[in-house]
Amino acid sequence: MRKGYQTAQARVVVAGRATVQPRSLPDEVPVALVYNGTTQAVMMATPRDLEDFGRGFTRTEGWGAPDSVEVVPHGQGLEVRMWLPEAMAGKLAARRRAMAGPVGCGLCGIDSLDQALRPVSPVTADVSLTSAQVVAAMEALRAGQALHDRTRAVHGAGFYSAGRGLFTVREDVGRHNALDKLIGAVPECATGAFVLTSRVSVEMVQKAAAAGCGIILAVSAPTTLAVATAEAAQVTLVALARDDRFEIFTHPHRIQLSEATDVA
Amino acid sequence: MRKGYQTAQARVVVAGRATVQPRSLPDEVPVALVYNGTTQAVMMATPRDLEDFGRGFTRTEGWGAPDSVEVVPHGQGLEVRMWLPEAMAGKLAARRRAMAGPVGCGLCGIDSLDQALRPVSPVTADVSLTSAQVVAAMEALRAGQALHDRTRAVHGAGFYSAGRGLFTVREDVGRHNALDKLIGAVPECATGAFVLTSRVSVEMVQKAAAAGCGIILAVSAPTTLAVATAEAAQVTLVALARDDRFEIFTHPHRIQLSEATDVA
Repeated sequence: MRKGYQTAQARVVVAGRATVQPRSLPDEVPVALVYNGTTQAVMMATPRDLEDFGRGFTRTEGWGAPDSVEVVPHGQGLEVRMWLPEAMAGKLAARRRAMAGPVGCGLCGIDSLDQALRPVSPVTADVSLTSAQVVAAMEALRAGQALHDRTRAVHGAGFYSAGRGLFTVREDVGRHNALDKLIGAVPECATGAFVLTSRVSVEMVQKAAAAGCGIILAVSAPTTLAVATAEAAQVTLVALARDDRFEIFTHPHRIQLSEATDVA
Repeated sequence: MRKGYQTAQARVVVAGRATVQPRSLPDEVPVALVYNGTTQAVMMATPRDLEDFGRGFTRTEGWGAPDSVEVVPHGQGLEVRMWLPEAMAGKLAARRRAMAGPVGCGLCGIDSLDQALRPVSPVTADVSLTSAQVVAAMEALRAGQALHDRTRAVHGAGFYSAGRGLFTVREDVGRHNALDKLIGAVPECATGAFVLTSRVSVEMVQKAAAAGCGIILAVSAPTTLAVATAEAAQVTLVALARDDRFEIFTHPHRIQLSEATDVA
């Protein structure tokens, strides 16, 4: 299960005619995030890099770094068992009693509209990329999605810095999970850009801000709320990035254009 | 807000040179689902067809049909206020006290692994499509995604029947939401197929089974758990459907192939 995919037999129909062929499909299993012995959240996730997932989720929820992370099979799923320092664990238990069921995308389990738009702290990361580096980062991500190449059904999140290029990629059936796994694997999020295969909804920006990352580069489009949140969080949001073309929605100072431009 | 998109100014960079151009982005707002005066769940959704969303979510959660549905602006979001018959409302309150925070994809808010894989009832729908109709359904969905054509960032879910073709489409930034909106708009789900732009994760199959729909046609790939769940729920799962090509993963009897095939 830990390789993240299995092979099924599919009836492949072309122009009305079927042949049976093998097809690799990504695994999706229930994963429980357990802090100091208590389950805090359960999510469907691809069972790879779950230690990273635990660390990243903990970080983007604002709970710091767990003292330990252990992945344990449990029934039909997996438990990511983490231990937080006493003080943080106490805060978590209080929050749990108060709101019951916070989860994955940072939204589910919230039980009033007022809780839905959590405040983001402005990102101060002093980092920039040239337009050529933006193009190179997207190209490198396309080349780095091993599980997606095999299954055509998972999202990827990579970390790119001007000095090191794209040096870490994480994949998952869920785009929030892919980003949490990446954040759990990369301590130095302020030094580069998150590179995403997915659309940019508000939670992706909230997670980037929580990790202190100043640049998001995404293949697909953002929502209006993602743009507003990136503006408020001082995150540079680049989206619809394909081939040598991309669109900058917020805080363009972190993208150095290679020529004089028509921008007023 | 109810049209579902807004126009932003993007710096469009092509080969390192920027121009400012308008770009339509989909709206994403917190939507609270409120039953008999109590908030049951809050999700990010595109603020269109929210009455359908309320009805469909209620149906796929197994709570029947609300007596009334009303959409009311509230703070930075919207409330979908529904009234359930007394008996069902009582059950819901009991469940709420027991588990606190069930939500959107049918998973979030669940607080143990045992609750994650809820049992599905087998679908008995006596319906079938020819391979030409599968191809026609996918083509019709591509032509029916008005908001996606404008924003390139939303998922679509349509309903196709052999007799009527593709007659209802719903769109949302979230694929679960698009399907819930569709299910809320189509009473006769057993008479045709759900046609999806998205990947097929387990919750999409659970929702189809809850609505009694026997066929899922999807542009993108399924997960292993989605295939296993479709097998158990007796749902015909067709995925990777593009141009004149598609793949059948479960219960192929509902797809009539146009020629003799190589299938053993």
